[in-house]
Amino acid sequence: MSKSITLSIDAMGGDKAPDMVVEGMELALQELSATRFILYGRSEQLMPLLAKYPRVARNCELRHTDDVVSGDEKPGVALRSGRQSSMRKAIDAVGAGEADGVVSAGNTGALMAMAKFVLKTLPGIDRPAIASLLPTMRGESVMLDLGANIQCDAENLVQFAVMGEVFARHVLHIDKPSIGILNVGTEVLKGNDSVKQAAAILKETHLPIHFYGFVEGDDIGAGTVDVIVTDGFTGNVALKTLEGTAKMFADGLKQEFRKNWGRKLGALFALPAINSFRTRFDPRRYNGAMFLGLGGICVKSHGGTDALGFCHAIKVAHELVQDRLNDGIKEDYARFSSEHHVIPEILEEDS
Amino acid sequence: MSKSITLSIDAMGGDKAPDMVVEGMELALQELSATRFILYGRSEQLMPLLAKYPRVARNCELRHTDDVVSGDEKPGVALRSGRQSSMRKAIDAVGAGEADGVVSAGNTGALMAMAKFVLKTLPGIDRPAIASLLPTMRGESVMLDLGANIQCDAENLVQFAVMGEVFARHVLHIDKPSIGILNVGTEVLKGNDSVKQAAAILKETHLPIHFYGFVEGDDIGAGTVDVIVTDGFTGNVALKTLEGTAKMFADGLKQEFRKNWGRKLGALFALPAINSFRTRFDPRRYNGAMFLGLGGICVKSHGGTDALGFCHAIKVAHELVQDRLNDGIKEDYARFSSEHHVIPEILEEDS
Repeated sequence: MSKSITLSIDAMGGDKAPDMVVEGMELALQELSATRFILYGRSEQLMPLLAKYPRVARNCELRHTDDVVSGDEKPGVALRSGRQSSMRKAIDAVGAGEADGVVSAGNTGALMAMAKFVLKTLPGIDRPAIASLLPTMRGESVMLDLGANIQCDAENLVQFAVMGEVFARHVLHIDKPSIGILNVGTEVLKGNDSVKQAAAILKETHLPIHFYGFVEGDDIGAGTVDVIVTDGFTGNVALKTLEGTAKMFADGLKQEFRKNWGRKLGALFALPAINSFRTRFDPRRYNGAMFLGLGGICVKSHGGTDALGFCHAIKVAHELVQDRLNDGIKEDYARFSSEHHVIPEILEEDS
Repeated sequence: MSKSITLSIDAMGGDKAPDMVVEGMELALQELSATRFILYGRSEQLMPLLAKYPRVARNCELRHTDDVVSGDEKPGVALRSGRQSSMRKAIDAVGAGEADGVVSAGNTGALMAMAKFVLKTLPGIDRPAIASLLPTMRGESVMLDLGANIQCDAENLVQFAVMGEVFARHVLHIDKPSIGILNVGTEVLKGNDSVKQAAAILKETHLPIHFYGFVEGDDIGAGTVDVIVTDGFTGNVALKTLEGTAKMFADGLKQEFRKNWGRKLGALFALPAINSFRTRFDPRRYNGAMFLGLGGICVKSHGGTDALGFCHAIKVAHELVQDRLNDGIKEDYARFSSEHHVIPEILEEDS
């Protein structure tokens, strides 16, 4: 914890913005007291909030913006006409070197388009990916892409694998993370061309990467591998299916415990276990999706989250900056492509 | 319950076969006492089991087969060299009109290849799909395809929608089931070409079909629609992610309740609610995936299931036969394609 870290914050993104944003900053400062913020948004809304949270006010520079990117704005439109928005200005602060990373709970597509335009992609990376930590039976895994790239070829998936591997080493602190490609079966002949070709490439490399092979949907919760690689369509559906199933289970359990007085009494006795279970799988603890492969740290919070969830997204950004994740990706990717030249060779054979 | 229904059973498919198969038949007969079975498999293994379950013996004709399709056999190989296998013979019985439907817990790919070869597809259906019931917060929904078709075009998805609609009417007894296409967002511009085109076709039809639009992964558990339509890659990943998350939750809850004596005591008090919750989401209650679009009823049980799960797969097959599902699909699909001619027209415009 040597140098102070500065994060730029889009105050206007998210269903409960800007209140939950500023309250989330307050919660984050309780743990990361040396963090500095540059806060972008409508000052008439933000001034009263900063008055309410003096610690945030002390650690933050407020910069007024009128424009807000709406939740349903198309990425291309936001990119062209949102140059004065709180989201864009917050990203610009990273591009200009004023901030070390940016956090927004706004429109995902617009955030990705703007971040890609301002921060560019890292050398060797064609397309950035959205990654998130997920709870598993063994602890935590990282899954990518979660929706930035609807259609992916083998080379995209290989790039995701390398980025995910670096991420798991730097953020999950796993020495040699295992990597799996999400598929409909574990046999080599299963799946579409992209996953089969990507698996072939990852098997061929002599990099010290631990490629496990194919994994299936139920391997996500089981924690079979540390890094789950998939295209943005499948990854988005899998992540939301996981969230929906978790919600169905939590609500279903709650319903059962409320059915009659006997059960309500039973719930009282079971409370310590249920509370500990709820904390362990609290979705807010997994809030904060990382945009990997960009020339700057950009974290996307769930739009529907509350202050605790936004606080967690801030902590994710803080950790990525502190762990110098992007330097790791750059180094590893350069090593991967220069020493081995395996991607173009294999792809040429097949095409 | 007028005419007695005959089901052919592959005794050799599944991890715990043939024991769980015969025990599952016994459980099924406790409810569906008039059902008749034709049982295919190794008689030296099956004779002692039939001696143990006299009710099954009384309701079943045992036909000896030596060959077994193994779990890792490729579909094409199984199709060519498995003509004397228990799986193939059980399907042949439906093809020959001796049985009204077939149930197997064996190799999914082999079962689909053989069933398609023997039973053919229904008129107007290019590719059969795998469908299953899923628990939701509102009750039950049906999702298809779950893995038969890795890559799907718009027309395939439209055919799945029609088959799923008929299925929901006949099996879930919903008058006008709502249909959603699984996507990464609910806006019309989201997703790949297949889902966008399929949605456009379903919106254009003047059939009395209730097309809801796009749904996301978390809509599965929420029960937003009665029928969830998707390609086999995404559907398989979503189904297994759902199963894996359910398992992670159940195991996680169990762990919390076993941490110390106080919590174990708490669990005792909470037992009625927990047991009722477990019954409601018991995966065995959702065992039995239907192959839709074939010229005969074919149900695939999970390979890893036990007798209770296999019993449920038998009950699914029984219900599909009783409800004359295939006649419904044939009638509706004929109506859909002849009255409206909407599929070829729209597709031609775009190609």
